Amino acid sequence: MEGTAGRITDAPAYQTIGSCEVEIPAPCCIVIFGASGDLAKKKLMPALYRLFKNKLIPEEFFVLGAARTEMDDGRFRESMQGAVQKELPGEFDHSLWPEFSERLYYASLDYTVPESFVGSLKKRLPPLEKKYLTRGNRIFYLAVPPEVFEPVIFNLDRAGMSREGNGYTRIVIEKPFGWDLDSAKKLNSVLGRCFDEEQIFRIDHYLAKETVQSILMFRFANSIFEPLWNRRYIDHVQITVAESLGIEQRAGYYERAGIVRDMFQNHMLQLLALTAMEPPVAFEADRVRDEKVKVLQSIRPFPLERLGEYVAIGQYGSGLIDGRTVAGYREEAGVAGASATPTFAAMRMMIDNWRWNGVPFYLRSGKRLSSRRTEISIHFKQTPHLMFAKDIPGPIDPNVLVLRVQPDEGIGLIFQTKKPGSRICLNPASMDFSYEADIQLDAYEWVLLECMTGDHMLFLRQDGVEMTWSLLTPVIEKLESATGPRQFPNYAAGAAGPREAALLIERDGRRWRPL
Amino acid sequence: MEGTAGRITDAPAYQTIGSCEVEIPAPCCIVIFGASGDLAKKKLMPALYRLFKNKLIPEEFFVLGAARTEMDDGRFRESMQGAVQKELPGEFDHSLWPEFSERLYYASLDYTVPESFVGSLKKRLPPLEKKYLTRGNRIFYLAVPPEVFEPVIFNLDRAGMSREGNGYTRIVIEKPFGWDLDSAKKLNSVLGRCFDEEQIFRIDHYLAKETVQSILMFRFANSIFEPLWNRRYIDHVQITVAESLGIEQRAGYYERAGIVRDMFQNHMLQLLALTAMEPPVAFEADRVRDEKVKVLQSIRPFPLERLGEYVAIGQYGSGLIDGRTVAGYREEAGVAGASATPTFAAMRMMIDNWRWNGVPFYLRSGKRLSSRRTEISIHFKQTPHLMFAKDIPGPIDPNVLVLRVQPDEGIGLIFQTKKPGSRICLNPASMDFSYEADIQLDAYEWVLLECMTGDHMLFLRQDGVEMTWSLLTPVIEKLESATGPRQFPNYAAGAAGPREAALLIERDGRRWRPL
Repeated sequence: MEGTAGRITDAPAYQTIGSCEVEIPAPCCIVIFGASGDLAKKKLMPALYRLFKNKLIPEEFFVLGAARTEMDDGRFRESMQGAVQKELPGEFDHSLWPEFSERLYYASLDYTVPESFVGSLKKRLPPLEKKYLTRGNRIFYLAVPPEVFEPVIFNLDRAGMSREGNGYTRIVIEKPFGWDLDSAKKLNSVLGRCFDEEQIFRIDHYLAKETVQSILMFRFANSIFEPLWNRRYIDHVQITVAESLGIEQRAGYYERAGIVRDMFQNHMLQLLALTAMEPPVAFEADRVRDEKVKVLQSIRPFPLERLGEYVAIGQYGSGLIDGRTVAGYREEAGVAGASATPTFAAMRMMIDNWRWNGVPFYLRSGKRLSSRRTEISIHFKQTPHLMFAKDIPGPIDPNVLVLRVQPDEGIGLIFQTKKPGSRICLNPASMDFSYEADIQLDAYEWVLLECMTGDHMLFLRQDGVEMTWSLLTPVIEKLESATGPRQFPNYAAGAAGPREAALLIERDGRRWRPL
Repeated sequence: MEGTAGRITDAPAYQTIGSCEVEIPAPCCIVIFGASGDLAKKKLMPALYRLFKNKLIPEEFFVLGAARTEMDDGRFRESMQGAVQKELPGEFDHSLWPEFSERLYYASLDYTVPESFVGSLKKRLPPLEKKYLTRGNRIFYLAVPPEVFEPVIFNLDRAGMSREGNGYTRIVIEKPFGWDLDSAKKLNSVLGRCFDEEQIFRIDHYLAKETVQSILMFRFANSIFEPLWNRRYIDHVQITVAESLGIEQRAGYYERAGIVRDMFQNHMLQLLALTAMEPPVAFEADRVRDEKVKVLQSIRPFPLERLGEYVAIGQYGSGLIDGRTVAGYREEAGVAGASATPTFAAMRMMIDNWRWNGVPFYLRSGKRLSSRRTEISIHFKQTPHLMFAKDIPGPIDPNVLVLRVQPDEGIGLIFQTKKPGSRICLNPASMDFSYEADIQLDAYEWVLLECMTGDHMLFLRQDGVEMTWSLLTPVIEKLESATGPRQFPNYAAGAAGPREAALLIERDGRRWRPL
């Protein structure tokens, strides 16, 4: 199929990359709110530029940046050129830039003033849509601070721009989706009054397409794993999202959020849901999201009076990362000298359903850990019968299946083999497989493409967001209401986390996989 | 533990090789009947020399060669030196040879004359045993043609040498263990009248220690395979022993034997038994052999009136192997010009027990095939639900687990992974593991070591041998009683076998794995 065919007709077009086809989305325009901000500069514009350069989006598209800053189109284009050049130094193509750049427009806007939406957007869009043949397809991307979500949503609706006309109208927002259960519900309620759920794309960019697909395909396109994927054969599951970075320039946000809001409410619980969910009716966004919500609903609420048995938190002190001394969290710019914000958490979760009863899920995530790694490891039970007991005195290490999400996405299976020899020797061996991507798209490129093609698979649904908040809000409140100063820092940068996290799992006679 | 410790005391000694320990057997003498023959020259003596050189057998040992040929010790040593130098050109050590060679003795013997056993062996052994401190441990190795088995066994007994004295007395025989069920029973009966079953070591040298151990450990030292190892998850099993060699210099034997006797009655059915057997009570020779016999007993007898649905045979014509033209079977020296002897067979076997009901085992073996390979492949069922049906129209290739026996012993798991891309692409991928041996011992070295340490794991028991004959004798008789000339040759050397073999499995909607 020709890569450009679909740019004229309505049938989707595909571009073949390697041995796979990528769907080229239909023409559209993207309105970026917060176009002068960091997210637009560092992530969205470079992603759009790369998609355009690689012909993964049609030529019939344009961007209308909108923000408070006063600026004309020319100044906006210059600013975006600087941003793209800075982010993609090796890929910036001077001869291509004008072709991309002429599709960038800017409108200054007061997010809180309804008339501003009419003047800056509603009147501005139709002539551009006519010029670029975007068929009325509109994506509103909210690259603004969460405080501005509600006025923007509300004013889009009030200006009559939330309803779909000839084309589609979609709205994209990024976390935080609220601050706790109440605020999440309020945000969802505002969104729900102005947009249909089908129009709403809540991004968890951490949960890139590849991860979702590879976990679900691994589980459900193979017949040999699903029969083992339950309490009968699995002893426990570990989910690790370890970062070696600190909080970078995000002290303001992080001081308020902490690791539980920043990582557990979204990414960690999404990884858990993908691992633990029942097979969906079909590999379709809503059927997958149905099952994710169902398993989240089955997580046992944390017993607040014995929270220490289920949750361990930590905060990094100074230490060595890659041989370089780094500051402790409390020394970071913008962080309070006696901050009680956790930068690490480990949790023990139980899923009360037929499949998982009695199988603990141990989750851990933290900043400034000894390595950067995201993985899900399935720890199987011991063999029920020690047939080799006479020759091998101790217990035999159980099988472990490791789903590596990053870096080096792949799958490893640790199993026992004999070592040649006259006596029986067992040897833990590993079968390994690494995904090789024909297409290297970063998370934002995928997110933008999927939103343009209208696939909700990578995006969160209202019920899922509220379910995770309802699970974690009591935990967060309990942690934040603790009186007296925390014994922080309790782990050094470059370590594997605090001692409390090791105890959490060791109390059950198990161990974390080494980081 | 010191490698030489056990040479003095009674506790077994071990030599550490790589990360594993090999048990050093106790002192013993080996009487080789047929010491002037090919087996002794090509296999046994080189194996003993290597074991001695690598200090895997104690210094307290000697060999007494016995055969019809008249020869003195000196002549025998010279002859053995020539044989070892020829077989192990890179490993022969002139400075070590005298130390080994002085342990070689020879006695000429008439196998059929009882007095000869007394004169040549019974009187000869005690002074040598005293000299080499072998503690009365004796191994009688029958490297003689099968016609001579019975007189040797009988005369050993008659000379009073079959019963154990202070040390052990063991007898080693190699296949063929009979020619059909009746002759196998007769041989076993002669053996049984003269020796206890514990004293008898029936070699299937093809089934080397590594294979037995690795299959059983893979199945039973890991918790994740055994739950899948049954009719619920497995569609069928294939067992392939493909050889690229022809019959070499064995026309006389092969013309009478054919592939079914040569490979199926022993190796093929042993591989099947290891794959299909229930978990033994313990990893001990008799408990493993119990289970092997049990599963062999469960193989459904072949329906002779519809044998074509279960058995396909073939004979190679001339063809290309590695770019070199080779002769067809009927052109080989010593083969009849219209020989009906099969050099290839494929069989479909059903195992009537709870675990395997309805799961066909397809076995194939042949000479002059396109590659040399021994493997067992477990073909799992399709996923029960095609969750990705919308995106992937056709059926998804099922999972296959491949246990490679040779060459490159290892394990491969073929499974489905997603290909990165906007559309769903599945990609069959393979996780792979290769055994790395710290110890490289050939089959005869293992067999000798195991016999010296008294472990029957690699050896066949009377009931197992008779069971396989009772299964295959009717098939062989039916095949051999066919009237009219066979449509042989029906496959070219270098091919994957005859068309009939492909049809055998394709009739069931399945395919052989490519060779």
